[in-house]
Amino acid sequence: MGSVVLTRDEVKKVIDLKETIDAVRNVYKLKSEGKAVIWPLVNYEFIDEHAAMDIRSGYIKGEQLHGLKMLNNFPENREKGLPPFNGIMMVYDSNTGMPIGIMDASYVTCMRTGAAGALGVDLLARKDARVLTVLGAGKQAPFQIAATLTLRPEIEKVYIVDPLSMEAAERFAEGITDLLKADFDMDASRVEFAASGAEEAVRNSDAIITVTPSRKPIIMKEWVKPGTHFSCLGSDMETKQEIESSISAEARIFTDDKAQCIRVGEIEIPIKEGVIKEDDIAGEIGDVIAGSISGRTDDEQITLFDATGLYILDLVTAKTAIVRAKETGIGADIEF
Amino acid sequence: MGSVVLTRDEVKKVIDLKETIDAVRNVYKLKSEGKAVIWPLVNYEFIDEHAAMDIRSGYIKGEQLHGLKMLNNFPENREKGLPPFNGIMMVYDSNTGMPIGIMDASYVTCMRTGAAGALGVDLLARKDARVLTVLGAGKQAPFQIAATLTLRPEIEKVYIVDPLSMEAAERFAEGITDLLKADFDMDASRVEFAASGAEEAVRNSDAIITVTPSRKPIIMKEWVKPGTHFSCLGSDMETKQEIESSISAEARIFTDDKAQCIRVGEIEIPIKEGVIKEDDIAGEIGDVIAGSISGRTDDEQITLFDATGLYILDLVTAKTAIVRAKETGIGADIEF
Repeated sequence: MGSVVLTRDEVKKVIDLKETIDAVRNVYKLKSEGKAVIWPLVNYEFIDEHAAMDIRSGYIKGEQLHGLKMLNNFPENREKGLPPFNGIMMVYDSNTGMPIGIMDASYVTCMRTGAAGALGVDLLARKDARVLTVLGAGKQAPFQIAATLTLRPEIEKVYIVDPLSMEAAERFAEGITDLLKADFDMDASRVEFAASGAEEAVRNSDAIITVTPSRKPIIMKEWVKPGTHFSCLGSDMETKQEIESSISAEARIFTDDKAQCIRVGEIEIPIKEGVIKEDDIAGEIGDVIAGSISGRTDDEQITLFDATGLYILDLVTAKTAIVRAKETGIGADIEF
Repeated sequence: MGSVVLTRDEVKKVIDLKETIDAVRNVYKLKSEGKAVIWPLVNYEFIDEHAAMDIRSGYIKGEQLHGLKMLNNFPENREKGLPPFNGIMMVYDSNTGMPIGIMDASYVTCMRTGAAGALGVDLLARKDARVLTVLGAGKQAPFQIAATLTLRPEIEKVYIVDPLSMEAAERFAEGITDLLKADFDMDASRVEFAASGAEEAVRNSDAIITVTPSRKPIIMKEWVKPGTHFSCLGSDMETKQEIESSISAEARIFTDDKAQCIRVGEIEIPIKEGVIKEDDIAGEIGDVIAGSISGRTDDEQITLFDATGLYILDLVTAKTAIVRAKETGIGADIEF
């Protein structure tokens, strides 16, 4: 009856990518069926510290789980030799309100975000998609690649684009095969990873995942070939935008949460500009998983999955970690 | 650099009533000086489980602490042999965003609530107050008594009133001296504890602390003698009210947080009834501690401290527990 308490390293040991993908797919479906509740976001900017925090929380009726995470973003920690992102999540049994797990939130967030982007690709990209671009060679990129290759093993080539530094993209492309082996036990030796400029990558890609914090569009409409899919994950705050509004205007659009995407997602700016309207959103990704709304309806269509991040994804991912930790005896067991 | 992790029993060992009172007094003052921020409350009712949860959070600039607690109230747990209240709080260093403590929230909540009620009595009751009434013989009552006797050792008599059960009040009155000794190492043998009906207790009291979840007034205006002080802690949700509106109408009123008390405190109903106006609130209790607003101005005055509970109180109380736990080696030390 105690709570499993897991550090970041322990979370990494007990969390599995395939299980995470299945859990995320299932919780999107539960949300579509009205069985999951996202509670209001609390956020704050620490002006003097040039830092920010947010509290995300929610409840999954289907699974009888609720909880929260606090994530702190203190970029100046890098200069202090401390991690810039810190946070802990708590998971409770919604039958009793008893805590069942407490763990570092950062690795869970990375894993569920990778699963989200990849599910967008798997559900909406053309069946014959072979070339992927990942825009943003940062911390999130390996998780996006690992999850997408898991769901779409036919992918042959992955362009790595870093809008700020070609050198970073090159370093990433050189190291990613080894990293996928080490961190995800994944053999990606058959996949070609190529650092590239944005235009060349986009012109040659069937699916594009964006994970930058950009506040102005990096991908231009004229580069996009018919039938391209976009999973946009970087825009999760007002004024962020990664792709030109005219791409959204033409796309069949899905969201992780309609209201949240309109407020802070990739579609925020196009909606504010009047380029698209709320009615132009085809549905939520969970509706596609549940089968209540069709995903891609045409091979020439541009599709867009706007994912702003939902705490219920963390919750189900953490649950898999708790189950595995109990099975393997990893982590502390504390009777609060 | 790790986080101290404390169970309820461990919190009890490292938390000290005097330290809690000092910490709470100080944080009320910091709030009055604009150095503390209460972040928005998140709450939810689990309809099928007849249960509720809330997430309270905040930031103290003066102390560079921020954090949150989730409290779950599952009354039906009693039938399952489980505690009805569960919750965990997390404390972070606001210079770095790193977690410094994670602990059971229920004992911290009890201690800081006791300190709050007692500070109201100490700051606002007449200097010659000798008789106290505690309305509500539940879990909160011993904390209120212990803290009030700490700050006002001249108190000679304490009436215990339980509006639902005289038997509960009698049992409480019989056991409280031993309980104060066992739980707070407090010798209260000089104090007379008497179970009583509400009217008799109120007619004879100089200070009254209310800690019931009542939704209709229990204390009537005609019983209240001039110069009485009220610390009202039970009303922390819309529609709760413990004392007749006409008492509030006559009182010099202080709040823990003005906006929150207007929304959910003891003064909510009188304000909605139009019996008092927002302008009738003299100030926040922190203003009295800071010396910017006078407390009681007259020995015949009725004074009222409306305390709805602020997470910043938990935060400073938890900080004392973290410091003591580190000194004594109590609890787990986990490097998240």
